Amino acid sequence: MRGVVMYAPGDVRVEEREDPRIIEPTDAVIRLAATCICGSDLWPYRGIEPVDHTPMGHEYVGVVEEIGSEVKNLKVGDFVVGSFVISDNTCEICQSGFQSKCVHAEFVAATIGTQAEKARIPQADGTLVPTPGQPTPDMIPHLLAASDVLGTGWFAAVAAKAGPGKTVAVVGDGAVGLMAILAAKQLGAERIIAMSRHPERQKLARYYGATDIVEERGEAGIEKIKELTGGLGAHSVVEAVGTQESFMQAVGATRGGGHLGYVGVNYEVSIPGIQMFFAGIHALGGPAPVRRFLPELIQLIWEGKIDPGKVFDLTLPLEEAAEGYKAMDERRATKVLLTL
Amino acid sequence: MRGVVMYAPGDVRVEEREDPRIIEPTDAVIRLAATCICGSDLWPYRGIEPVDHTPMGHEYVGVVEEIGSEVKNLKVGDFVVGSFVISDNTCEICQSGFQSKCVHAEFVAATIGTQAEKARIPQADGTLVPTPGQPTPDMIPHLLAASDVLGTGWFAAVAAKAGPGKTVAVVGDGAVGLMAILAAKQLGAERIIAMSRHPERQKLARYYGATDIVEERGEAGIEKIKELTGGLGAHSVVEAVGTQESFMQAVGATRGGGHLGYVGVNYEVSIPGIQMFFAGIHALGGPAPVRRFLPELIQLIWEGKIDPGKVFDLTLPLEEAAEGYKAMDERRATKVLLTL
Repeated sequence: MRGVVMYAPGDVRVEEREDPRIIEPTDAVIRLAATCICGSDLWPYRGIEPVDHTPMGHEYVGVVEEIGSEVKNLKVGDFVVGSFVISDNTCEICQSGFQSKCVHAEFVAATIGTQAEKARIPQADGTLVPTPGQPTPDMIPHLLAASDVLGTGWFAAVAAKAGPGKTVAVVGDGAVGLMAILAAKQLGAERIIAMSRHPERQKLARYYGATDIVEERGEAGIEKIKELTGGLGAHSVVEAVGTQESFMQAVGATRGGGHLGYVGVNYEVSIPGIQMFFAGIHALGGPAPVRRFLPELIQLIWEGKIDPGKVFDLTLPLEEAAEGYKAMDERRATKVLLTL
Repeated sequence: MRGVVMYAPGDVRVEEREDPRIIEPTDAVIRLAATCICGSDLWPYRGIEPVDHTPMGHEYVGVVEEIGSEVKNLKVGDFVVGSFVISDNTCEICQSGFQSKCVHAEFVAATIGTQAEKARIPQADGTLVPTPGQPTPDMIPHLLAASDVLGTGWFAAVAAKAGPGKTVAVVGDGAVGLMAILAAKQLGAERIIAMSRHPERQKLARYYGATDIVEERGEAGIEKIKELTGGLGAHSVVEAVGTQESFMQAVGATRGGGHLGYVGVNYEVSIPGIQMFFAGIHALGGPAPVRRFLPELIQLIWEGKIDPGKVFDLTLPLEEAAEGYKAMDERRATKVLLTL
């Protein structure tokens, strides 16, 4: 099959990869309907994380082609959405809603690579969620978004306790930040402040529910959030960038006793303990347990209540993946969908 | 009046200080019934935090001697317990239960210094909680503990979501750690693991409700906690030491999706963002909003249901404060009560 391999930072190729097959009886093999490039794929692309002939991709939707002998909840032909972390969905950690910390957790990015025609998905019964039927083609980008950016943005908003009566500030206008805005709106937040200085993304932020835009960053950004919240800071802050500056901006923008949801940090982030301490805030972060939210998100998409797929602003065939990476790296595209 | 002043690291003196008086109409002046030395007073004593002729102390109980013209909830003669952070108890942040981040917050340690015969307490109506009557002398250590160590340990246990069915690990066997054990027990925790290698403190930990003792630290300590929890880590972890090693031990001991409550870090702690991220845990820390818990804690003490005052294992007259600091610094005493 064809698949994306990152040879080295900046060197993305599409080449023949071995066809996946059932290894464990709990596996399924799916044929992808579409895949995409994630903001986190840019870390190795930019040399911030190690990469060496690595199969890429961790977002996926598609049709079950083959199942292992122990798979009970799926059948060949089902259309499925899966998370970027494998989970059995039955262990104590999964049952508490933290499937990304499942005792069988495995990162799709590290071992599988779904920027490809097919993929082997371990723990298929736990990981994959079938849609109510075969989706129409225009539903596919929305379902694909659920696999990571929507699920991650949703988790961030839930972690930040976005809800009625709350002012939510979202640091970052990438796909995850935009999805956190969509989520905050769905969760009933009263006011949603997008921190963005990119005109196109500001427009999309407003489309998804932002009520205010703050262009300032760092200390000036924090001051602006305080100005907008009677000097207190936001009840709920989502951190969706992952740099030192953005993380500390998010901490500073959260009011005492407020909630910070953070869904990605790079390897260089170092949090001064004393600053975190005196902030006096709740913080919840980590690889998002997307699996927890998938049934609900699929339903919302199925009923046409949310349209997360608008976050894809460039569509390319899989063979042109290298151009997709380049466009995202140069910020010409927010998120690239790869067709198969 | 007589009061403790730390001239420089290691140099503690008791000397004449100016008598406090009402400055703002919302102030009260109290005559202390007892005061004490806090583990955090050791940071400047050891030169880890700056100190220069600083009046010391932030824990206090006593009798109201004088009130400002706007004080409504207290009268002269009331016996009161206050938190180590001043709060109006009416602002939006206070009302949300985070009085230590009150819009009028002020640290007693920084400006007042309650290791003294008297103290001026700003925002008296918000800060001070009267007891149901005049306490008997044997109640005073218990009430004094509520002012900080009990309130802080209690907050840590609440922040860590200690409760029925939960396994709680407490990192640190100082006064706050011991009080977190007492709190976890009161909150109904199923299992309470004290991380301690000090025989006397282990005994007190068991007295307050610890079901298990772990002597290992760092990675070995984390492994031991995992061993005791089916490989998952504790649901709830309290960090009550505040060093780099203890903080990361607490992070590592918390299961995915679990809760970490931390109530003090020193200036040297730097949290690797990526490690915090992949832990996938809830964290809540900060100067404890003791005021939130004072009415409940006073009631429990009044009814004889808890005896936090056992944490004082050395009692000295105020004039011998220097010896008290020395005893705590050398770990000859867990916590020193100073009589007046």
